[in-house]
Amino acid sequence: MTVAVLPGSFDPITCGHVDTARRAARLFERLVVAVYAHPKKNLMFGLDERVEMVREAVVDLPNVSVTPYDGLTVDLIRTMGADVLVRGLRAVSDFEFEYQQATLNRKLLPSLEVCCMFASVEYSFLSSSIVKEIAENGGDVSSLVPPGVRGRLDERFANRRGVQPSTF
Amino acid sequence: MTVAVLPGSFDPITCGHVDTARRAARLFERLVVAVYAHPKKNLMFGLDERVEMVREAVVDLPNVSVTPYDGLTVDLIRTMGADVLVRGLRAVSDFEFEYQQATLNRKLLPSLEVCCMFASVEYSFLSSSIVKEIAENGGDVSSLVPPGVRGRLDERFANRRGVQPSTF
Amino acid sequence: MTVAVLPGSFDPITCGHVDTARRAARLFERLVVAVYAHPKKNLMFGLDERVEMVREAVVDLPNVSVTPYDGLTVDLIRTMGADVLVRGLRAVSDFEFEYQQATLNRKLLPSLEVCCMFASVEYSFLSSSIVKEIAENGGDVSSLVPPGVRGRLDERFANRRGVQPSTF
Amino acid sequence: MTVAVLPGSFDPITCGHVDTARRAARLFERLVVAVYAHPKKNLMFGLDERVEMVREAVVDLPNVSVTPYDGLTVDLIRTMGADVLVRGLRAVSDFEFEYQQATLNRKLLPSLEVCCMFASVEYSFLSSSIVKEIAENGGDVSSLVPPGVRGRLDERFANRRGVQPSTF
Amino acid sequence: MTVAVLPGSFDPITCGHVDTARRAARLFERLVVAVYAHPKKNLMFGLDERVEMVREAVVDLPNVSVTPYDGLTVDLIRTMGADVLVRGLRAVSDFEFEYQQATLNRKLLPSLEVCCMFASVEYSFLSSSIVKEIAENGGDVSSLVPPGVRGRLDERFANRRGVQPSTF
Amino acid sequence: MTVAVLPGSFDPITCGHVDTARRAARLFERLVVAVYAHPKKNLMFGLDERVEMVREAVVDLPNVSVTPYDGLTVDLIRTMGADVLVRGLRAVSDFEFEYQQATLNRKLLPSLEVCCMFASVEYSFLSSSIVKEIAENGGDVSSLVPPGVRGRLDERFANRRGVQPSTF
Repeated sequence: MTVAVLPGSFDPITCGHVDTARRAARLFERLVVAVYAHPKKNLMFGLDERVEMVREAVVDLPNVSVTPYDGLTVDLIRTMGADVLVRGLRAVSDFEFEYQQATLNRKLLPSLEVCCMFASVEYSFLSSSIVKEIAENGGDVSSLVPPGVRGRLDERFANRRGVQPSTF
Repeated sequence: MTVAVLPGSFDPITCGHVDTARRAARLFERLVVAVYAHPKKNLMFGLDERVEMVREAVVDLPNVSVTPYDGLTVDLIRTMGADVLVRGLRAVSDFEFEYQQATLNRKLLPSLEVCCMFASVEYSFLSSSIVKEIAENGGDVSSLVPPGVRGRLDERFANRRGVQPSTF
Repeated sequence: MTVAVLPGSFDPITCGHVDTARRAARLFERLVVAVYAHPKKNLMFGLDERVEMVREAVVDLPNVSVTPYDGLTVDLIRTMGADVLVRGLRAVSDFEFEYQQATLNRKLLPSLEVCCMFASVEYSFLSSSIVKEIAENGGDVSSLVPPGVRGRLDERFANRRGVQPSTF
Repeated sequence: MTVAVLPGSFDPITCGHVDTARRAARLFERLVVAVYAHPKKNLMFGLDERVEMVREAVVDLPNVSVTPYDGLTVDLIRTMGADVLVRGLRAVSDFEFEYQQATLNRKLLPSLEVCCMFASVEYSFLSSSIVKEIAENGGDVSSLVPPGVRGRLDERFANRRGVQPSTF
Repeated sequence: MTVAVLPGSFDPITCGHVDTARRAARLFERLVVAVYAHPKKNLMFGLDERVEMVREAVVDLPNVSVTPYDGLTVDLIRTMGADVLVRGLRAVSDFEFEYQQATLNRKLLPSLEVCCMFASVEYSFLSSSIVKEIAENGGDVSSLVPPGVRGRLDERFANRRGVQPSTF
Repeated sequence: MTVAVLPGSFDPITCGHVDTARRAARLFERLVVAVYAHPKKNLMFGLDERVEMVREAVVDLPNVSVTPYDGLTVDLIRTMGADVLVRGLRAVSDFEFEYQQATLNRKLLPSLEVCCMFASVEYSFLSSSIVKEIAENGGDVSSLVPPGVRGRLDERFANRRGVQPSTF
């Protein structure tokens, strides 16, 4: 059985992330979406909330599970006995970063395989920070994130825009 | 069962290609290395010879088979009922080309998945044309190609260098 | 009145080119699509045929005209008294090439302005050579080129695929 | 009448920005330089000061106006009834960012056009952060920014360098 | 006598930096490794400690000296009467940054030469921030940094991992 | 004594090449400009003519010599006992190609050092093929190539433009 891990901060999960998870879940027998607890960047959502949003977004994929983690990604993979690290690629700058990470990770864990999947072209512009920027400025993110994420962003920025979040 | 296809011209197959095939063979249950019959570029080796060199190079991988093909890669994948197209990435320029190809191929075959794997960093500079250039100029390619390929390149350029190919 | 020039080989014109022409025609008062007579690359279509296919593709845009040209693009612009060179950008490699061309062209014609427009993301993978490759291999190009171009490609490759071109 | 918007933080405006504004002002009938109030990055100058420096720098361009704004750039464009977003491109990394932004912005405002102009090659290395870094370290920025900006930077860093700002 | 300067933050020095210094020391008669006192980024080590780690790492290279500096790099070069700035290149993003810096620096100091050297491919993924990230997460950095640096990182993160640093 | 080699096809030498040679000649005690006899590309000038044009262009640099060569560049360097390979970098695509070449060359000759120098920004768009394209189309190349090269291009294309070459 091939076990794949898709790691990230998911602050919050976007439709691009969901697209990558869905594609990877078709290729590998089991997929673990791993939510990194302590990224360097400033977070908008706490770990529990980020994990919960990911769980809601992949609930219809039976062979996908979600887990928080801390420490090195290679240690997570080693502990889980996983076979392959999955990453979504959108742009040249992603590529360079991923290549450096993959080379480093293989130095730390020589048996590691990395599988990069291309996001659908309609999500090639999408990132968690872009979503947050649009939401902060009162833009409509409903086509960019799963419904549950949109609800949470609405709550968060409700006051700023002087509107009440819609009740779910 | 997940069936993966690794297409290319393989004129000739290099250690970088073998590395990618080996990695893909660990991730997917069956891997087909597909040798494209009529690439636009000038070929050094005929189709039969290219297929034979690939066969020799992956002979120790039980779940890998080799096939020549013509026409569109997506048609091959459709005909074979394969699940995923595997590509090796080495550099930024590879990335852009592969992204455009993947987007196009998905337009022609929406169910297609593409999995890009990173070549080992020691092969990141390697390509079939570089191998041919070195061999043509009398350089030593023994660490860049499988032994069978080296033998064929030696024969081809023996006269140019005034040396006899070593007997295998 | 601002006059813009969109130069290219258009061998053949694709939906991506038409998209760029349409966008430029909204921004500038007059747009000239200029078909380069003697590009270095091997051509599939003659100059007259390329010009005709472009004319058919932009026939509904009243402020757009089509002209063949030879020599330097800056000389065409100078002769026409045009104000701006329009180019469509799809990828990083396009960008570098266009930047070098623009810098060179400004050295030859200091008053030149260059306006780069982004192709729609759905056409970001598209080029004339990709279209020709698909058509040669019997693939369906109907969503990639204007109808007139598709007809001509069908005729050209009819024998290869053993099918008769549909009658228009 | 074609109305173009050139948005940015302009903290402070550089000769590269002025070059792009000047080029855009030749192509479009009206150009609005829009100063973004609340960028994520740490600002050196307040909004009023940034707007004032931009106004001084484009004072000789009759069809250019300057306005502060907040919220999404697409909302500004919608409100103003503008036709085209102008951006200056300097490097590959700019290109990728701009492409992602353009794709996103078109998703939010489908009628949007984006026109990228190339900065003069002599300004291809220039950015607001580079200017601030040089000024902070006591370097001479007089060929990099308009005179008014240089005066303000001199005042700001006068103490650090132990020199009196020249009186204007 | 050709004097070369290799500037950086060195927070901390990595095996990649040492590799570049060693290569440059073979090409130029004197090499000065210059440790920048006040980079914008958050530092893990103080200036004295960074200088000391660099000194330990290049102690076996007789024509290399180490110096802290502040202000503009071009001012350091001017003051020292140095001939050439040495930089290590690893990736496309490095390249663009270095090109912009070189162009700017030549504008400030026209006589400046810049020599970019390629890091060994085995260090192409390496940076000070990657080293710090691995060390913070309890990973093994012994193949990525000189021994003295590893000792200091061990001390710094000993508590986090609940282990005692090895005694040197 | 440090000996540097600057290899290329020089078909023909441009002002960008001369700029790089001049910079390298200031850094290294001896510089050999090596003209490659049999590049893959279609040549406009024969080997003798290319060598002669290079000689004329660097005649004022006392520590620079010119030599034709064939075979692998690393073999030339080994034979000459040279210390460093010099390359001029203009763009991201140059960078990737050079990195791959450098990695390969070090595999063939581990002691090899590569020093990349940045062309002056005013030559960043320049290449031999661009020069030939302009000359073929009757454009003015006098600011792009040394005078001797311009004379030869004028002769070559005199008929095409219906003008007599100026007499030198």
